[in-house]
This record gives sequence, structure tokens and C-alpha cells, in this order.
Amino acid sequence: MYRTHTCGELTLAHVGQQVTLCGWVQRNRLLGGMTFIDLRDRYGITQLVFDMERNATLCAEANRLGREYVIQASGVVKERINKNPNLPTGDIEIFVDELTILNASEVPPFLIENETDGNEELRLRYRYLDIRRPKLRDALITRAKICRAVREYLDDKNFVEIETPNLIKSTPEGARDFLVPSRLVKGSFYALPQSPQILKQLLMVAGMDRYYQIVKCYRDEDFRGDRQPEFTQVDCEMSFVHQEDIFETFGGLIRYVFKKVLQYELPELPKLKYDEALRLYGTDKPDLRFDCRIVELNELLPASDFAVFNNTLNSGGLIAGINATGCASYSRKQLDELTEFVKAPHRGLGGLIHIRFTEDGSVKSSIDKFFTEEQLRQIGAAFQAQKGDLLLIAADKHTKVRKSLGDLRLELAKRHGWMDEKKWSVLWVVDFPLFEQDEETGQITFAHHPFCSPHPDDLPYFDKEPLRVRAQTYDMVINGNEILSGSIRIHDPAIQEKVFQKLGLSKEEQEKKFGFLLNAFKYGAPPHGGCAFGLDRIVMLMTGGETIRDVIAFPKTSGGRDLMMDAPTPVEKKQLDELGITLKQ
Amino acid sequence: MYRTHTCGELTLAHVGQQVTLCGWVQRNRLLGGMTFIDLRDRYGITQLVFDMERNATLCAEANRLGREYVIQASGVVKERINKNPNLPTGDIEIFVDELTILNASEVPPFLIENETDGNEELRLRYRYLDIRRPKLRDALITRAKICRAVREYLDDKNFVEIETPNLIKSTPEGARDFLVPSRLVKGSFYALPQSPQILKQLLMVAGMDRYYQIVKCYRDEDFRGDRQPEFTQVDCEMSFVHQEDIFETFGGLIRYVFKKVLQYELPELPKLKYDEALRLYGTDKPDLRFDCRIVELNELLPASDFAVFNNTLNSGGLIAGINATGCASYSRKQLDELTEFVKAPHRGLGGLIHIRFTEDGSVKSSIDKFFTEEQLRQIGAAFQAQKGDLLLIAADKHTKVRKSLGDLRLELAKRHGWMDEKKWSVLWVVDFPLFEQDEETGQITFAHHPFCSPHPDDLPYFDKEPLRVRAQTYDMVINGNEILSGSIRIHDPAIQEKVFQKLGLSKEEQEKKFGFLLNAFKYGAPPHGGCAFGLDRIVMLMTGGETIRDVIAFPKTSGGRDLMMDAPTPVEKKQLDELGITLKQ
Repeated sequence: MYRTHTCGELTLAHVGQQVTLCGWVQRNRLLGGMTFIDLRDRYGITQLVFDMERNATLCAEANRLGREYVIQASGVVKERINKNPNLPTGDIEIFVDELTILNASEVPPFLIENETDGNEELRLRYRYLDIRRPKLRDALITRAKICRAVREYLDDKNFVEIETPNLIKSTPEGARDFLVPSRLVKGSFYALPQSPQILKQLLMVAGMDRYYQIVKCYRDEDFRGDRQPEFTQVDCEMSFVHQEDIFETFGGLIRYVFKKVLQYELPELPKLKYDEALRLYGTDKPDLRFDCRIVELNELLPASDFAVFNNTLNSGGLIAGINATGCASYSRKQLDELTEFVKAPHRGLGGLIHIRFTEDGSVKSSIDKFFTEEQLRQIGAAFQAQKGDLLLIAADKHTKVRKSLGDLRLELAKRHGWMDEKKWSVLWVVDFPLFEQDEETGQITFAHHPFCSPHPDDLPYFDKEPLRVRAQTYDMVINGNEILSGSIRIHDPAIQEKVFQKLGLSKEEQEKKFGFLLNAFKYGAPPHGGCAFGLDRIVMLMTGGETIRDVIAFPKTSGGRDLMMDAPTPVEKKQLDELGITLKQ
Repeated sequence: MYRTHTCGELTLAHVGQQVTLCGWVQRNRLLGGMTFIDLRDRYGITQLVFDMERNATLCAEANRLGREYVIQASGVVKERINKNPNLPTGDIEIFVDELTILNASEVPPFLIENETDGNEELRLRYRYLDIRRPKLRDALITRAKICRAVREYLDDKNFVEIETPNLIKSTPEGARDFLVPSRLVKGSFYALPQSPQILKQLLMVAGMDRYYQIVKCYRDEDFRGDRQPEFTQVDCEMSFVHQEDIFETFGGLIRYVFKKVLQYELPELPKLKYDEALRLYGTDKPDLRFDCRIVELNELLPASDFAVFNNTLNSGGLIAGINATGCASYSRKQLDELTEFVKAPHRGLGGLIHIRFTEDGSVKSSIDKFFTEEQLRQIGAAFQAQKGDLLLIAADKHTKVRKSLGDLRLELAKRHGWMDEKKWSVLWVVDFPLFEQDEETGQITFAHHPFCSPHPDDLPYFDKEPLRVRAQTYDMVINGNEILSGSIRIHDPAIQEKVFQKLGLSKEEQEKKFGFLLNAFKYGAPPHGGCAFGLDRIVMLMTGGETIRDVIAFPKTSGGRDLMMDAPTPVEKKQLDELGITLKQ
């Protein structure tokens, strides 16, 4: 061993001991004939001291050490006079009597500190230096801790970790596959798995009873938002279970992980119905760290001449609003900003109606012309509006109103710090619809995937009112982020057939797309269900990262590039020849 | 929950309890008005009893259940009259009063038992049924246990599990890469990693200190022997370590795994030098479950007129043999078989010389014409030959003689059961050469990879006698199988430069092949080293499998095909168009 201790472990208990440390030079200060070096490794920082009077040569050597030099230093642990309470090792320092330079370093291209001067592109290019920053280093360590806690919990519950293959069959389903040309079977391709969905269901058919895997998945998508072409799932499946068993098992898992990693006691996860989530929060992934619910007004509004409301009601639209508590004093400019916010193309509202309940007790609104103060106060009552509150109301199609008000409540919460940052909102969203209707073609399609089991109570609606059929599908939502999705799967061939019929899938298409799964189901498939957690996102949330790139050791850019390795790259013609492919000119 | 218990847990302690079990019908017997069903799940088998007299309808229903039907059965636990001591649940049976068929099954295409009538191709096609066989099921469960033990040990030693990317840069180095066409950067390709070698070294530069990962690796090779295009490594790296630290850490790991999974106490792993392994056992991965060493005779042989020996000595070859203890009574036919064995093309000997020390005390040999009995007895003494022993001697080039005798000792051990099947031979092979010489071109090439550190004592030989330079490279060998390989890496740029020069790599080639690693090394690389375990092979050895396919849930054939999913396959033209590639006509 090059060292007796790490840079994170020495305390007053070690005073007087001769120790050897290794690490990187974080800082180097010359102060009144003494040289002080902050020596850094993964475990912490320890102060080294070189004394000009005791050993001038050694001190001179220490003065020449640049930032990020790798050194080995031996000496005696002494109590510090000026203790540093912010450092676990801040009570001691090492009086060095032996110094070895293990490796030199060029001046790094950015500061190796949490507050760095390097932009993200530069840091991605030198990711091995970026990881030296405590923030990123600690995020990776926490990621490993989270995985460990996940495994502890699942192992303890008799789940078996099973690896599924990464070179699988391409199915023209879901997102776009990454393809891998086969050299031995020319003209044929493997696909990288978008998820082990079918394979884990086969493991249930195989009788493995409880399966999990922390596994890379691949989607060749255009990288909208915070996505990576390869990402990691905690993938799980269980046999002989109902939905309630899933809620208990995986609700328990997330509570265990929070307890173990953050020492945070989550309560039992509440369940919110999909319909209700949309109605109250405008989204199927609501952030419940603050209240602020959407109030629907269609039934409550007094009759008026206000055309916007009347047209909305006549065309079957929705009039609804939220209470921006304490925002009655918003300026014209602030209100305009919110109006622009809901008019953004992906929200698409025409505008916002507002009603102010001012501190002085008056009511002012943008619809004063159409409603009496009494009527406005009645509307206010539906929102429990108090003096100082501002109501923001929208009228349009259901989807637009809900989406806009849902986004608006988040935006207001952010602006006004309504969210208790120490609090966690973790819940189940349940009772998703089984089918969706394509807005353009009107065609019925599956909302999740075609193996999701319908709710047994809803089978009677299957033929006449398919959109009314609930699926046994569920999401877990943390602070407004969907971090788990799953379902009870269909194990009954008759019900599977009914679903395929509804989706308009012919026997041939069924066979082509899902042949080997349907074939397996002929040999005794148990009732089963499961879910997949998005690991990167969970780690990001739990470590306070801003993007999932903050919790992945070597991530890709939004263009799918690895800037450090410089990938992807052109390859040699010989390699393509061996695979029997050519580049299209 | 569909069940109160699994099929593996009920004992006499449960007698009288009302229970509900779920599982697959393993067997169905009608016996004197009673129907007995063996119900199987992942955890075991429990006997269900249906009584014609108590409930004729239920009994008739039970009689109709076919093999592999999935059922749910409720009833009372009773003590069995005819106990089955081979079954953990053999003391009890369930008198069923409620039966639900959860799913039917077609007749499976082969017997779902350890001794099955299905050939491997058929079983690979129906892998989800094959996994129901206890042998395969238990191998997968043991695999998970091994991974768990590995993680426990490494987590406890402060290793951090870090995921490295699977879409990386293709480098024309080592084996052939699997390529993945990039859609966003047309004409460019990612490669699937052959191993995370460079990435884990970068994690050491990044200061992560101790890394591990249980990770899929990919090699597009022609599938000689027992290989898979995707396989799993336990990949590890540590900073600030010498070879001895590696031996202690990873020797400790394998001992922990054996203890935890097999309850087997391995001793401290012995170390065998590469040279010595070749000299004594003819291979760098010797199986030491039995002794039988190769004895070299060049210095010991008396002068004779035997041309084969004299020519071998004159041409710098090797004369050596092994003692086939107790085989003096081998027939002509048996000796011929052994001669054919060593004459096989990949061994390439011309023949075998034998000396029998018969039970009656006489000595007979194929070289009686050239040596006196006294001389033969002297040769025998070098082998400690006793009455009843047979010496087998070869004379040829060193490599051929060693390879042949090494194989021969294994063959004899197999034929005569010399290996104690309950014993494990686990050892380090150390002091591998740094360079190899290409037999045809005479060019110097690296034996392992170009980042292996030379042995510090051997630097003086670098220029004049490079083949004499030992590397800080090591293998771990279990029962004659290499299951780990690793090295201390070069962290000193000057030594790296020396190695590249010796390999004849120009600056341009260095930059092209290893540019981003060499660049990283400029910013303070710590001394580091590591290793990778072949997980599939370890699991195979520890579960007594015959091929690694026996311990992989969904393996591929030797032709790289997945017979269950039918992969690889042709893909749609649209998919290729999107990637900007075409098939070569």
C-alpha cells in the first residue's frame, strides 16, 4: 500500500502517529516560512505542513508542487492551532518529513471545485477532471448507495437478479431501436433493448417468480429534454400478484431507499386516481409539495354575457382556475408574464382571466363588465380566496386548460417558494385508461403497452365504451417527476385476444410483433405484473442534480455525442466490409 | 396476494393450517380414489391431495389438469403417512378444498425435469420452459447469490459501483468491435465495449480510488469454444496499490464468495510463477487438484544412441515426461489412444515414449534398445516411479512437449478420477512476460495490453533483452480455468513512452488509438491497477455447469443466434434509410 490512511479519516485521535497519505494537490500556500498544502482524495482533504526551518529542501520542493500533482507524503499528525470546523479532518494537520511526487500534472483547463469556471462542454471533454469535483464525485457515490439499497431490499424479498441479453430482436414497436449489424448472419441485425419488458415477462412464464435487474436500456430518439440514448432502469417483475401487492412492495422499496440513503422517513405512499390528478393538478405527475388545486367552474358560474365562458361551455370545454395566494398585488407586467406563459405554443391558451382580492377588501377583475362584485365573491369562495389572493382562470378545451393551469401552479410555486425544499412528494398515480384515442385519426391505441391488463370491473365497457376501460397501470411520482411506470400484465389469452382485436392487430401482425411472447403464453403463464424505475432520474432528484448528466459518469450530449472519447466516429472500410454494409451516398 | 405460502416452505409446523398455494402441475397421479398432484414453483414442490369421497367434483377437476397447468389451490396442511425424505416439504401434504385454474398449458415440447428428453436446440428455442427445470433455475439463483456476495465484499471495502457507457468509441485494437450506426451523426458509429478497460483507468485518473462494475462486454469473434458474443465481467480497479494489495483484495474476494455461496473455506491463494507453471504443468492455467508434475530430463538423461533424444537435445528442444501412477498395466490399445491424443494437430507431437514399472518389479519400455534397465530405473527415480507406474515421455520443441504433457496429465486425471471433485484448486499465476514475440514475423508485441506496468526489477533488460522483462500482470486460475486477469497499469509517462517505442507505435498511432487516455494521464494519474473476473465462467464452475450457456438466462448459439427470439433478423428498409446505411449486394 502506498498509504496508511485516506485524506478523510484523521482526527485528534491520531495525533502523534506517523502516517502516509496519497492524493492530489488542491491548494498550495506559502505563509510565514511555512508551506501549507491541501491534499485531496475521494475521501476528503487533509492539510500538509512543511516547515522552512525544520527542512528547507523539503519545503522548497513542496513550493514547486502544482495544482493536481499526485503526491505521497509521510509525517506526524499534529493538532491544529487554527482548527477548521467545516472539514472532518479540520482538527489536525500533518508535519511532513517525506515527500514523493507520484505524478506531475499540467494546469487543468478549469477549476477543480464545486464552483468552477469551466462550461459544461469543456467539462464533458475533460470528464475525468470534472469527476474530481466533490459535487459530481459525491453524486456518483450516492448513486452507488442507492443501487445498493435497492438490491438489499429486493434481495431480502426473494427477488432474483437476472441478466437479460443486450443483443436482441428488433421489433417495430415503441421508440426507435439502435441496431447492431450481425457479421455472422450478413444482412441481419440485432437491436439493443428499449427495455427488457418481454424478457422479464418470459422469466415469469419460466417460473422465476420475482425478478429484478439494474439494466441499461437504449432508445434512438431525438433527444428532447433531459434524455440520454442509454439510460438505466431498475426493472422488476413478480408473479401471483395483484396491484395492491405491487404498491406494497415497491412503495416499500422507495421508502427503504429514502430511509437508507437520505435518512428520510417517507410516509405510506398515497394513491391518486389518474382522472383526479388531471382534474386537480392538470397533470398525471403532480407535485404535491404544495397544495394549490385547480377548481373547475363549469357548474358554479352564474349566467353572464361573457362570450368566452359561454362559448367554452357550449363547445364542451372547461372553465377552471387556481388561487395564486398572496399575489393580489401583482403588477400589470407580472400578469402579462403569466399570460405569455400560458400562451406558449405547447400550452396554447388564448389568455388568462384574473380576479384580485386586494388587501383593502375590494375585488377587481378583468371580467368586471360581466360579473357583479357579489358574483365575483361567490367565485372566490370556490377557491377559498382571502384578502390578498389572486385567481387565475382559463377557459378552453379540457386538455389545454388543465395543462396550462398545471404548469402555472408549478411556475407560481417556484417564483414564490411555495415548495418546502426539505419535503418530498411521493405518490402513486393509478387507474390510467387502457386505451387512448388518436386525436387525428380517431383510432384506438394502447395507452401504455398492449400487455397491460384491463381493470376487471371495467370489462363490461370493453366493446361499447373502450375509452372508459381502466388499465391496471400505475406510475410513481416524486416531486412531479414520473420515476416508475408499470402494470399488471394480461396472462389470459382470451383477454389478450380481445385487446389485440380492439387495437386492430391482425393475427399476422400479432405473430410478427409479439410471436415468441404469445407462444410462450400457451405453456402456463402465471398472473404477473411489475414496473421499471428510472434510476438516473431518481438519483438526480435525490442528489439535487439539475440534469441526469449530473449523475452519469460519462454522459452524452443532447446530440448523442461523447465529447471525451469523441464518439461516434467514422470507422474503417474493412470493418463495414466485414459487416456487409455500406454507407449511403 | 394469490397465495399464503410458497411450494417450498410448509413443514410439520404448519399442520392444521388453512393455506393457499400457486404453481405449476408437475405430476398428476390417480391412486385408489385419491388424486395426488405435485405442485411446483421456484421454491419447491408440495403434494396436493384430492379425495374422491370428500369432493368428487373437485377430484374430477383435478384429474383433468394437464402438466404445466397453472393453478391456485387452498386446503388444510396434513401430516403425510408416507413421508418423502428427499423433499423439504416431504412431511406434509395439502388436502385441497378449493381449486382455481389460473392458466392452461399445452403439452410442453420436452420434459420439465433435470433429466430431460429435449436436445439443446429445442430447449434454447423454448428457453422459458427450460428455465423451469430445477438445474437451470438453481444455476440462475446461484448466479444472483454470487453477484450479491461480490458486491457485499467490494462495497464493504469502499469500492464504488460505477456504470460506464455501452455506446463508446471504436478502436481498432484487440478483438473485433460490434458497431452501432449513429442516426444523428450519419456515417459514424458507436462501438459496444469489449471491456471498460480505458474507462475504468479514467475513473482512477478522476480520483474515484476504488471502482467496480458487474458489466456486459461484447466481442464480435468467431465463436471458438465456449464463448458468447455478450458476456459478463466483474470489472475492478484500485488506486495507490502494488501487486500485493491486489492479491490480498481479490484473493479475499474469491474466498468470501466461496464461503458465502458454497460454505467452502478456501485457503490463502498460493502464487505460481508463469515460468514455473509452464515448466511443471505445461500451461499457465494449471489444475492443481492433483499433483502429477512434468519432469524435465534434458540434464538427467544418460548418453545414448537414441536419435530422437539426441536430435532433440542438439536442436535445443525439451525431453520431459509425466508419471501416470498406477497405469503400468495399460494395454497396447490404451497406449495407442494416448499416442493419438498427443498427435492431435493442436498438440502436434510425433509420438510418446513409455516406461512401465510393472507390479512384478520388472521394467519394460519402448526404448529398451537404447537404455539399460539400470538407466531406466535411474530415469524412473526422477519421477519417484513405484511398482505399477507408467512413465510417458515426449521429446520435441518446448512448446509442443509442454502443451502435450499438460493436456495428457489432465486427460489421465479425468480417466482415473485423480481429481477430488470436492476440492478446489484456486491460485494466482504471476510474473507473466511483458512482451511476446510473434513466431512468424519475429516482431515484439504486448502479451496482455500496452498499459501493463513492467516489473521494476526488470527495467534494465528493457533494451537488450525485452522478452526477459516481466510484467506486473496476474491471472487467477480455478480448477484449470483462467477466471481473472489483470495488471498494475503504467502511470509514468516516461515508461509508457518506452513501451510504445518497443512496440513500434508512432506518435500518430498512439494518438489515434489511445489519445484520450494519454491526454488524461497528463493531469495527475495515480498509480493504479485492477482486474476483471469472467463471471459466467465462475458461475459455471461453482454450479457444476458444462458450458457458460448453462448459467446465462437467454444465451446465444455458437453461431451468435438467439433461437427463442429469432435474432438477429433482417430489418425494414426504413430503419436502414434512417441510419444512412445499405446492405452490400
